[in-house]
Amino acid sequence: MTQMGAQGFSRRALLGGAGAGLAVGAIGGAVGGRAAASPGPAAAPGTGAAAVPFHGPRQAGIVEPAQARVHLAAFDLAPAAGREQLRTLLRIWSATAARLTRGEPADGHENQIALDAGPCSLTVTFGFGATLFDKAGLADRRPEALAPLPAFPGDALDPARGDGDLWLQIGADDALVAFHALRVLQRQAAGLAVPRWQMAGFGRTPGATARPTTGRNLMGQVDGTNNPKPDDPDFAAKVFATGPAWLAGGSYAVVRRIRMLLDDWENQPTDRQERVIGRRKSDGAPLSGGPGAGETTPVDLAATGPDGTLAIAPDAHVRVAAPASNGGAAMLRRGFSYQDGLLADGSPDAGLLFVAFQADPARGFVPVQRRLARGDGLSRFLRHEASGLYAVPPGAPEGGYVGQQLLEG
Amino acid sequence: MTQMGAQGFSRRALLGGAGAGLAVGAIGGAVGGRAAASPGPAAAPGTGAAAVPFHGPRQAGIVEPAQARVHLAAFDLAPAAGREQLRTLLRIWSATAARLTRGEPADGHENQIALDAGPCSLTVTFGFGATLFDKAGLADRRPEALAPLPAFPGDALDPARGDGDLWLQIGADDALVAFHALRVLQRQAAGLAVPRWQMAGFGRTPGATARPTTGRNLMGQVDGTNNPKPDDPDFAAKVFATGPAWLAGGSYAVVRRIRMLLDDWENQPTDRQERVIGRRKSDGAPLSGGPGAGETTPVDLAATGPDGTLAIAPDAHVRVAAPASNGGAAMLRRGFSYQDGLLADGSPDAGLLFVAFQADPARGFVPVQRRLARGDGLSRFLRHEASGLYAVPPGAPEGGYVGQQLLEG
Repeated sequence: MTQMGAQGFSRRALLGGAGAGLAVGAIGGAVGGRAAASPGPAAAPGTGAAAVPFHGPRQAGIVEPAQARVHLAAFDLAPAAGREQLRTLLRIWSATAARLTRGEPADGHENQIALDAGPCSLTVTFGFGATLFDKAGLADRRPEALAPLPAFPGDALDPARGDGDLWLQIGADDALVAFHALRVLQRQAAGLAVPRWQMAGFGRTPGATARPTTGRNLMGQVDGTNNPKPDDPDFAAKVFATGPAWLAGGSYAVVRRIRMLLDDWENQPTDRQERVIGRRKSDGAPLSGGPGAGETTPVDLAATGPDGTLAIAPDAHVRVAAPASNGGAAMLRRGFSYQDGLLADGSPDAGLLFVAFQADPARGFVPVQRRLARGDGLSRFLRHEASGLYAVPPGAPEGGYVGQQLLEG
Repeated sequence: MTQMGAQGFSRRALLGGAGAGLAVGAIGGAVGGRAAASPGPAAAPGTGAAAVPFHGPRQAGIVEPAQARVHLAAFDLAPAAGREQLRTLLRIWSATAARLTRGEPADGHENQIALDAGPCSLTVTFGFGATLFDKAGLADRRPEALAPLPAFPGDALDPARGDGDLWLQIGADDALVAFHALRVLQRQAAGLAVPRWQMAGFGRTPGATARPTTGRNLMGQVDGTNNPKPDDPDFAAKVFATGPAWLAGGSYAVVRRIRMLLDDWENQPTDRQERVIGRRKSDGAPLSGGPGAGETTPVDLAATGPDGTLAIAPDAHVRVAAPASNGGAAMLRRGFSYQDGLLADGSPDAGLLFVAFQADPARGFVPVQRRLARGDGLSRFLRHEASGLYAVPPGAPEGGYVGQQLLEG
């Protein structure tokens, strides 16, 4: 089973209205250690061969399913760098991302480490932090929506692992392909931008599950059921920004490193975990749905049980996070799990690399998190340890680069 | 393509002489959120369904190909625990590992996080550190070969991330399946053993490469070409211990966390990297082989180039590491890459989780590493940061547990 075949939509289908066609290139992998650079005989779609086009009206890595491996990385402009250096960097990065996502060598020589594989659904997504605009002489083009996120109750944020002038989300279904892209892009930034922080996470491996499923997080809960769907009539209004002009068709990404207190969580009996979430653990069905419910049964926040109490508790996560509880606020979550060993106290350094795309943080993450931080029963088991907010420009056409509208518009 | 189909041998074929049969169970994933616990209609082999039997004369996770995800973990016996507690723990752990590797729930309830997937080639391998034996009242059964490894030039070892009474290697082709196994086994150790250190790493995703290939490390080099092959006549003599009696058919595992100085490495031109290794980067062919050579062309340490100098440099890694340079010393390497973000100086915290199995460390890792640490051109780009040595008992039969010969023999 291919990763794309297991999903409900493909980038090409979404972006171009080209039906259900899959954006799978003809690259079947390697012969003699080098992937074919141009389309050849049709190859069977597979994990290695699956390719997501870099060019298009939207950046890749927003609506595509989360891959098996992700690197999140932030860079700051080099001390002497300004607008010209930023443009140089974005041109180089876009050209390289386009080549790598086609399964081609990064820069025309042998110094690459993913030679044997196809692109493995590689996507590279670029974002701009609020601090970029002053440094690049673009203060007048900084969107108001990029103002710093408010502090939330319970936040325990490490500034060294948050924010940053530039943000990259690099996902692929093979960890070496993703790592290779990270290293190439980092090397190309030399003299223009310096690494600020990096995190790595994971999703499901293609073919691990026998049927398409919503992901599970490290708590074991089905996570993402109520995510906006690309065929929802208001999907674009929720996810894609309409302005300022250079950002139209782009988005805002909120990134949070959310550690899970798994020792505490796993000590709760399953029925207690289910009440905290508001969904059954086995299949994600809402507790309001009765025994016949399934994952996609709509959540009924008003339903009561035989004893007259709410089927979904007042502080259940699905209630507090529901758009109906937040003036319709919604966002497209695209999170990954992480596990980085043990902390000094022996507890697991593990949880969720939360990534969410939205048209406007003030109508997405901010109102939802404000309610969650105060009223969500789940928040007792979570620690927000790092945070970032980035403007994600629209995609680049062939020959263009991401951010061109900002720098040349 | 299935992971097992892409490999040259299967556990069952190796252990039982059962031909080329693949040890793939009938578990096709989940229906209604729960994997079938008993064999049903035959399912197509796939990444999720692939199962490696836990029971057998050898432990799983030694000769099997490295999976897409690994957790290495060490535990120390709880302060009040002794031989009886160790036996209790090993019985529980073996029973759980057997269930999980069949794709069954860990302990009969819903509190598991990998419900939707099959076993994904999960293996759990147990080892015993030298410190275990005194604590468990088994000092007279500690093998001499488990004496501490000597210090090697250049070692920069962190004791907190090395050694340990008990060692686990948990590999699976899906990261959530591997993580779930780690958490279940850790929870079951409560009161019996406490976590000491944990590391996570990765191999290739099944299907990422179009044909079976030797792995590449984060330096981009093909790594593992000269590994002993299970059908080599002396394979067992190199890899499996013959004594003491309780360990006969087991092995010794050396574990090293080896950070790669990738910023330095990637600044070397490809031909320089190739001279350091002694192999071409593109395909792993030895530099002694000429233009027509391939990865499996035998290394000719005596070959000279047109100018009369050695084709493979005196300090090339393949020369210094070759069995011919080390009195025939050999081991079965089963390493994984790791990437844990950035160090404080901005350099990558990334490299190799080196795992090697051998009949006797004194005829495996020790002589090879002694030469590498002094004479290997590659060692300038490596830092050994953590180290462990473990006796890996033979496998358990149905109804038995790993370590039974030690505790009851």
